Amino acid sequence: MKSTTENKLEKVAGNGLLGRRAFFQKGIVWLGASAAGVSMAATTGDAAPPWMKTPGAPLRGYGQPSPHTEATQRQLLQPYGTMAPGSGASVTPLQDLNGIITPNGLHFERSHNGVPAIDPEQHELFIHGLVGQPLKISYNDLLRYPTVTRTCFIECSGNGLFNANLADEPMQMPVGHLHGLMSTSEWTGVPLSLLLDEAGIEAGAAWLLAEGADPVAMSRSIPVSKAMDDAMIALYQNGEPVRPEQGYPMRLLLPGFEGNMQVKWLRRIKVTDRPTYTKDETSKYSDHLADGSSNLFSFTMGVKSAITRPALPYRMQGKGFYEITGLAWSGHGAVTRVEVSADGGTSWADAELSSPALSMSPVRFRSPWQWDGSPSVLMSRAHDNKGNVQMSRADWSVKYAAGHLYHNNSIQAWAIATDGEIKNVWS
Amino acid sequence: MKSTTENKLEKVAGNGLLGRRAFFQKGIVWLGASAAGVSMAATTGDAAPPWMKTPGAPLRGYGQPSPHTEATQRQLLQPYGTMAPGSGASVTPLQDLNGIITPNGLHFERSHNGVPAIDPEQHELFIHGLVGQPLKISYNDLLRYPTVTRTCFIECSGNGLFNANLADEPMQMPVGHLHGLMSTSEWTGVPLSLLLDEAGIEAGAAWLLAEGADPVAMSRSIPVSKAMDDAMIALYQNGEPVRPEQGYPMRLLLPGFEGNMQVKWLRRIKVTDRPTYTKDETSKYSDHLADGSSNLFSFTMGVKSAITRPALPYRMQGKGFYEITGLAWSGHGAVTRVEVSADGGTSWADAELSSPALSMSPVRFRSPWQWDGSPSVLMSRAHDNKGNVQMSRADWSVKYAAGHLYHNNSIQAWAIATDGEIKNVWS
Repeated sequence: MKSTTENKLEKVAGNGLLGRRAFFQKGIVWLGASAAGVSMAATTGDAAPPWMKTPGAPLRGYGQPSPHTEATQRQLLQPYGTMAPGSGASVTPLQDLNGIITPNGLHFERSHNGVPAIDPEQHELFIHGLVGQPLKISYNDLLRYPTVTRTCFIECSGNGLFNANLADEPMQMPVGHLHGLMSTSEWTGVPLSLLLDEAGIEAGAAWLLAEGADPVAMSRSIPVSKAMDDAMIALYQNGEPVRPEQGYPMRLLLPGFEGNMQVKWLRRIKVTDRPTYTKDETSKYSDHLADGSSNLFSFTMGVKSAITRPALPYRMQGKGFYEITGLAWSGHGAVTRVEVSADGGTSWADAELSSPALSMSPVRFRSPWQWDGSPSVLMSRAHDNKGNVQMSRADWSVKYAAGHLYHNNSIQAWAIATDGEIKNVWS
Repeated sequence: MKSTTENKLEKVAGNGLLGRRAFFQKGIVWLGASAAGVSMAATTGDAAPPWMKTPGAPLRGYGQPSPHTEATQRQLLQPYGTMAPGSGASVTPLQDLNGIITPNGLHFERSHNGVPAIDPEQHELFIHGLVGQPLKISYNDLLRYPTVTRTCFIECSGNGLFNANLADEPMQMPVGHLHGLMSTSEWTGVPLSLLLDEAGIEAGAAWLLAEGADPVAMSRSIPVSKAMDDAMIALYQNGEPVRPEQGYPMRLLLPGFEGNMQVKWLRRIKVTDRPTYTKDETSKYSDHLADGSSNLFSFTMGVKSAITRPALPYRMQGKGFYEITGLAWSGHGAVTRVEVSADGGTSWADAELSSPALSMSPVRFRSPWQWDGSPSVLMSRAHDNKGNVQMSRADWSVKYAAGHLYHNNSIQAWAIATDGEIKNVWS
């Protein structure tokens, strides 16, 4: 920021962090993009850009991104060369996004043997087990049920694994790789409580088995209390039918719970009196603690934040004004506060939060920052309305066993060198 | 709804309209989808559906809808066979969507000579005219400016034209054709006030000329007051870079104003002391009144609602339970109330509104309805927090001149015949 009014800027923490009022102070020259001497005549008529001189592309039925943004893709995480092409994950490229919503084409993927090609005319949802009346509901019938809409995140419990207790040192990779197994959609569907009420849950019912119609019949155990609280059979994602990678024609939505439980391609819910201990919840998705014990059912995703810009894979473009921005979310409730530091945690300032802050919905946080070119370390720390505070990686890593990789919601930091290089460092 | 508990249902208006508590009453059999006698063994192993017996599709960089939803497309409105392929509009298929957000591929289009293929590396935004310091800002520089995020609708002022004073009788067409020149996105970008402050608006400045970089240099006049209030240079749409059809790499966003003013492919803002009276605001987009006068600058889109289901192009699937649902929005503020009628306006019941209701952001409304198979007329009527109420088509049509087609926010009705046929009728 080159400005004659620089001394008027409200400094709110060390190393150039500015208050939100800096956004709207008069007389600030953010980037000094002067057009002095530019005549508009030099940009019109023959001098106009080429796309103003020829008819543009026709209307079309279903739009696609600009060819100039084709690098904005999900990145595949398939570390084993011999892995089946449908097994693994792909991450949302957080480094190229802004706002809160994830566009449907970029929602992260996690599948265990590929995306099934389900014919909705043949797909049925069964509800059975400890119920008075088993139900078999076709997709078309389910479309007639009452619906609700809510915006919330889905996060794979393995999100943050590259900074977890698997790693010996910080890995240098895009922010999407580090935190992009988290995506946000506006979901619309049928309250699960309504279907369970219709089936009539019997005495002794305490758990559900939810099973997908994918080739591995992915299945997890879910407490009935969650099902009756805010669970949904999601049919629409950001307005349109749920995408194949996210469970078309229907998926289970469990706001705030780990992604793996929100069973995609949902075909069956069995009401039971105890957990089923499926292969998917015993072979994976358990939390191994430093004391040798394990948490088998650790469902709720912790309070977390991540700075998505400035961040890898990019580098700084010289001294001056930057907006530090990122996402913060909590499976426990609503994010109420995000602190940002530009000096590695020595001092902190409250970032501006996008509104409204909704339960289990991320907020976008923003802090204006004046980078003077000196070495800096950027960090963010989120708080939620249930009193949870994001912890440092140092604290997180001693809580869990060596090799543990799930539920890493610790603070991650970006170190910025004088030459503008950005590096992932541990907090 | 076949139910032994039918007499417990809360009737809130005539002809079967139910209260929202009907959504969550215990013991209701919505569609009677009994699975009695179905053994789960008959759906597993060899009897499992074919997509559980073969590996699914691989992970991919940018997802697409299911092939089974390929009919969910924008529909082209190009009534003149000789029209240039890039001139006209395409509508959001509201009949197949739910929730509030419009997925980016289905946001309505309106272009006057096609979608320009803009190279973002060459695109520049000029701010000139009555300013202290003209600005020339590259796309990459603009990406470094402070950003804000808001969810709001954009509506073409021609939305509803098929039911406007052009028509002699109600036209039978999908609800997307009738109301789908309105779409909703989460928009993120740079506050225009910040750029105008940087340029330094001079005394006497009262209007802006905003011009697009499309082949027709689409341009409109905008009051400075709106620009300083809540206008945005939008760079992101539902998280990702703005789509080509919506103005890539940048568009003007004027929450609540008619869509045509929210200039796409924005290249120039000239600060002026009076309106420029461009061809786009004098040849079109004026409101002709019944008394022979015209409103030249009628910017704000009125309070409006539309029932998107049950609606054309579909028909009823027999007696029983239906959710009456649709969208309501207002360019004046937030929608606070939507009434629904199932008896052609004789009686009304308040619909349930999705929360939160944000200014210039649509709400989804929902009312449970028990259709007994008798002829019915469904209507909705929206109210906003500024005291505006949606008017009948009869009242609207006498306000405006014959042939007038803009700003039709009147109530539209769906008549349902005993055989399940749905027809557009006038209110």
